[in-house]
Amino acid sequence: MPSRFELANAIRALSMDAVQKAKSGHPGAPMGMADIAEVLWNDYLKHNPANPHWADRDRFVMSNGHGSMLHYSLLHLTGYELALEDLQQFRQLHSKTPGHPELGYTPGVETTTGPLGQGLANAVGMALAERTLAAQFNRPGHNIVDHYSYVFLGDGCLMEGVSHEACSLAGTQGLGKLIAFYDSNGISIDGEIEGWFTDDTAKRFEAYGWHVVPNVDGHKPEEIKAAIELARSHDDRPSLIICNTIIGFGAPNKQGSEEAHGAPLGDDEVAAARDQLGWHHAPFHVPEDIYQGWDASARGSQAENDWNARFERYQAAHPELASELKRRLKGELPVELKGEKLIEEAQQNGENIASRKASLTCLNELGPSLPELLGGSADLAPSNLTFWKGARAISRDRHDGNYLHYGVREFGMGAIMNGIAAHGGFIAYGATFLTFMEYMHNAIRMAALMNQQAIYVFTHDSIGLGEDGPTHQPIEQLNALRCTPNLSTWRPADAVETAAAWHAALKRRGAPTALVLSRQNLPHQQRDRQQLAAIQRGGYVLKDSDAPAEAILIATGSEVGLAMDAAAALEAKGKSVRVVSMPSTDVFDAQDAAYRESVLPAAITQRVAIEASHRAYWHKYVGLTGRIVGMSGFGESAPAGDLFKHFGFTVDNVVEQVEQLLEEAVA
Amino acid sequence: MPSRFELANAIRALSMDAVQKAKSGHPGAPMGMADIAEVLWNDYLKHNPANPHWADRDRFVMSNGHGSMLHYSLLHLTGYELALEDLQQFRQLHSKTPGHPELGYTPGVETTTGPLGQGLANAVGMALAERTLAAQFNRPGHNIVDHYSYVFLGDGCLMEGVSHEACSLAGTQGLGKLIAFYDSNGISIDGEIEGWFTDDTAKRFEAYGWHVVPNVDGHKPEEIKAAIELARSHDDRPSLIICNTIIGFGAPNKQGSEEAHGAPLGDDEVAAARDQLGWHHAPFHVPEDIYQGWDASARGSQAENDWNARFERYQAAHPELASELKRRLKGELPVELKGEKLIEEAQQNGENIASRKASLTCLNELGPSLPELLGGSADLAPSNLTFWKGARAISRDRHDGNYLHYGVREFGMGAIMNGIAAHGGFIAYGATFLTFMEYMHNAIRMAALMNQQAIYVFTHDSIGLGEDGPTHQPIEQLNALRCTPNLSTWRPADAVETAAAWHAALKRRGAPTALVLSRQNLPHQQRDRQQLAAIQRGGYVLKDSDAPAEAILIATGSEVGLAMDAAAALEAKGKSVRVVSMPSTDVFDAQDAAYRESVLPAAITQRVAIEASHRAYWHKYVGLTGRIVGMSGFGESAPAGDLFKHFGFTVDNVVEQVEQLLEEAVA
Repeated sequence: MPSRFELANAIRALSMDAVQKAKSGHPGAPMGMADIAEVLWNDYLKHNPANPHWADRDRFVMSNGHGSMLHYSLLHLTGYELALEDLQQFRQLHSKTPGHPELGYTPGVETTTGPLGQGLANAVGMALAERTLAAQFNRPGHNIVDHYSYVFLGDGCLMEGVSHEACSLAGTQGLGKLIAFYDSNGISIDGEIEGWFTDDTAKRFEAYGWHVVPNVDGHKPEEIKAAIELARSHDDRPSLIICNTIIGFGAPNKQGSEEAHGAPLGDDEVAAARDQLGWHHAPFHVPEDIYQGWDASARGSQAENDWNARFERYQAAHPELASELKRRLKGELPVELKGEKLIEEAQQNGENIASRKASLTCLNELGPSLPELLGGSADLAPSNLTFWKGARAISRDRHDGNYLHYGVREFGMGAIMNGIAAHGGFIAYGATFLTFMEYMHNAIRMAALMNQQAIYVFTHDSIGLGEDGPTHQPIEQLNALRCTPNLSTWRPADAVETAAAWHAALKRRGAPTALVLSRQNLPHQQRDRQQLAAIQRGGYVLKDSDAPAEAILIATGSEVGLAMDAAAALEAKGKSVRVVSMPSTDVFDAQDAAYRESVLPAAITQRVAIEASHRAYWHKYVGLTGRIVGMSGFGESAPAGDLFKHFGFTVDNVVEQVEQLLEEAVA
Repeated sequence: MPSRFELANAIRALSMDAVQKAKSGHPGAPMGMADIAEVLWNDYLKHNPANPHWADRDRFVMSNGHGSMLHYSLLHLTGYELALEDLQQFRQLHSKTPGHPELGYTPGVETTTGPLGQGLANAVGMALAERTLAAQFNRPGHNIVDHYSYVFLGDGCLMEGVSHEACSLAGTQGLGKLIAFYDSNGISIDGEIEGWFTDDTAKRFEAYGWHVVPNVDGHKPEEIKAAIELARSHDDRPSLIICNTIIGFGAPNKQGSEEAHGAPLGDDEVAAARDQLGWHHAPFHVPEDIYQGWDASARGSQAENDWNARFERYQAAHPELASELKRRLKGELPVELKGEKLIEEAQQNGENIASRKASLTCLNELGPSLPELLGGSADLAPSNLTFWKGARAISRDRHDGNYLHYGVREFGMGAIMNGIAAHGGFIAYGATFLTFMEYMHNAIRMAALMNQQAIYVFTHDSIGLGEDGPTHQPIEQLNALRCTPNLSTWRPADAVETAAAWHAALKRRGAPTALVLSRQNLPHQQRDRQQLAAIQRGGYVLKDSDAPAEAILIATGSEVGLAMDAAAALEAKGKSVRVVSMPSTDVFDAQDAAYRESVLPAAITQRVAIEASHRAYWHKYVGLTGRIVGMSGFGESAPAGDLFKHFGFTVDNVVEQVEQLLEEAVA
């Protein structure tokens, strides 16, 4: 039987070999954390390599995602469908082993990491999801949801602000089954961290209410094991195990220095490391006894079989709960989702309300039949209107709620939502002001990259928020969202479109959606049945002219009412004008060409786009010759009405733009 | 002589009156922090209301910027040019008293705040700037730069991740003249914070290496005074004074609750508060003895006169230093700035190098004559190539450097740069990978909003970074930058354009610039003198056809080389093609119509834009009918060459796009 050190060296060898072959990558973290990983994976991690999707597996996250070869080595060695050939394809196009762990590319990778700090926050979300799901579904004698969330992280993760946001909240929530391993190696890319990072991290995490195991030798398995035992014995608080390690451990000339971090060691140093470690095997060769020492297949399938048996007993005792849990874990929406009915009702009700208010109505109507909703706001619940009538806050004393008071932590919220989504069993929504989506943009991007459902409720969506002024008035944000791949963005014009937006967001199970909502009231728009159905195509003709249209007004959200008023004024002047409401440009763009042509005929080039956001995006629909009534600079602090007037969002201005355009066309 | 309590009540009364009159705003923080402000401003703050720009004034920042009426009240009461009428115009269009403090709107406001956490980070930047400037210019017997930076902050600031980044670095740097006052009132917008914020903040800041004065009664002047004395006595570490306060202090029915936070108290409660406080004066009326108690004019002008006298002695002893300090404080560039020479040299050298490498060359060439450069990177110096040959790291032991190792703290870096810029005396540049501009976008926005110079060095600007994969490959980032008002964005095509970009960034004294640079080598382009000069117009004809152009290729950065190759291939096929290099769309857009027409003639509608970034932006230049060779989804992990091919950035594809376009035009 190989020693623990020999088992760990398999990780070191595979990692340095793969980085060497790829001619790029990060050997330092895998070689430094190999001993920690060996103890955790061989002695504790509950997982089944044959089924990476087993619902009750422990979650493992590498927040220091550049050390991906550590994770790939572990998956390969313990028996996942990840062959040596896959490791040899490290960092190559369409391989299962991309440069950073990517969800969906590699069996066993739980979340995409690389942007530092976010993996840690994802793990907080996973632990929150586990505890909440357990509280909702476990019953006496039936601990059917019961797993740990483990996360590896480095100095970089701890410097990032998102680590503060997520870990502060994890402490307040008392997430006892979250266990973090800090790879304290004293090195970051610029060199020895003492020049820029001197936190007393133990003290910092104690200040968050965490249980801290400090000063563990990350190369001594018995110390690591004792620390994990301690961490697991504290079930009222998350644990941080601070492991002192040597980056690039085993590479005699580069270990302990930033040279080991992010570049191949070089053939000579790889050979020297083999000598130093006593690993006398060819590149990518792992002896059979080492494989046997790592193989988790038997233990894994035994564990899952045990769980399946327990689930059967649970199912017998609580058939409805069991069936509901299955539905939740599969990510199926309930049969009775009443989204379309809601759209029709809103059309009938005809209310002139703010779209944030309409969103609350949606939550109140949809919420009771959507127990998987896990809501929240970054301390703006009374403004975002996200705390619906069935919302119950989750706290360290109350685990079975469905709402998180995230505190003023936008980025943490976004990254925690990703962890919740990656865990499964929930649909997470989270809210802040649209401007502050910038605090969390990279977490939104990560949801999109990971194909995870997350619903963002971004209220106060323009200068229409008024007096709080330019710091709070979004300008560039909408376009930043629209240019984020795989994100769907909706800016509804009234309560009806808001219901359609929520419906679309809920149905979009494999990707995130941003709902961009007004603070101020919006006028209700009349629609026939066909128009009502067309909302879900992202853009549609809200008002057509009797005669063939001379010009098209395209608007979104709060500017649709303005477009309608301007069209009426133009009509009174004898002009034939079409109004297109375009709540979601990405959904509209995804329609077939015939539909798009029916809404925006290529022949009608006299077009004016109206949106109280940055102008630049709208050239996509009005081209080089159309007009855009939009913003190009920052807003101001003043009542909303004054601002719309000041910045030209008036019937007079829109009418003038159209008239000028029509005159130019004639000239 | 009025009591301290009466003096403080003037703030409370003005704040609740102004919020009431504006029908919106935040009375809670001003009423809660009035006593702290009274002690700080009347007993300690070194400032001259007659000259808000006096270089050696103490800096005062309200990081909890929603409490702006506190600051406005202080400025009004102590004698700044801010009349009662201005307070009565609170939150109205074009007033001097916007909803949140805005730099440039109100004399005495040092930075724009509102987006939580950033004011605190700005103050860290101010303290860093002060200490660095002092180290560079003070001489024995001449402490000519010597002031404090004070910052007020609330629970929200402390929940935000950026507070962690900035305060961790402030602790490492040992910024002894930074003193922060935490308004610990236990309330945030969602209610009592114990459900979402239970940090032991004293312990947290001790972990950062701060000196903490805990448990101060924020309504007892003698306790506040003792705390400030303690804080000032610790000159090796920043100090945090934790003040326990009651939000909305004095409003009998709303104080201590979130109801006092962000809405007018209402007429009845304002009246009740007047009773409770014993403030029996009409709205906006401040008795003369209260004004006298606050008036800082005499003390302020005395302080500045003393400093002027000391500066004269300094000038006599160190004339060159004094003249250089004056230049630096005025923000004038040195006469010998060799930017244009650098552009010409780069053209002559004709190197095929990465633009990040060309940027390092610029720093090495420009740096020696720009002592105001204060550089840095968020732990990516070896990748961003920002640590030029004259760079010297600033540390707690070495104050006179010119480079900050910011650590992995992008947002903190951005907000600290804003504080450095607002302080004066420096030109700050800071670097990270382009993708991670999302971690710091709102700080970039704040620089733009505040008209502050900051230079962002964003390297690894596309899929061209290769193996690190989609988490590191920017897609939406360029457009997000381009849609941020008042930000100038450059994506240079070679070393020559990189020099032009640096030159433009340095000359843009009143606004920020983003330099978007490649990881990989870029081919040098030939230019005649006219073309060389035209780079500074943002877009120019890099290659024209002999015959009138049938089509225009527009490209930026690493895709300009591709456009040139494609143009050559098309020419070989008998097509006449123009290539436009467009390193800065905002600079190009700012040119006169005749110039723009000369580059992109309206008559030539057959246009293809090429940029390895999100496609959407380019409709602005190719309209509805042109083609865009760009990205619409995320990248992949693979060698750069494989990726450019995979995503269609090839001569063949560009040629095909142009040919199709020309065929359509004929058809």
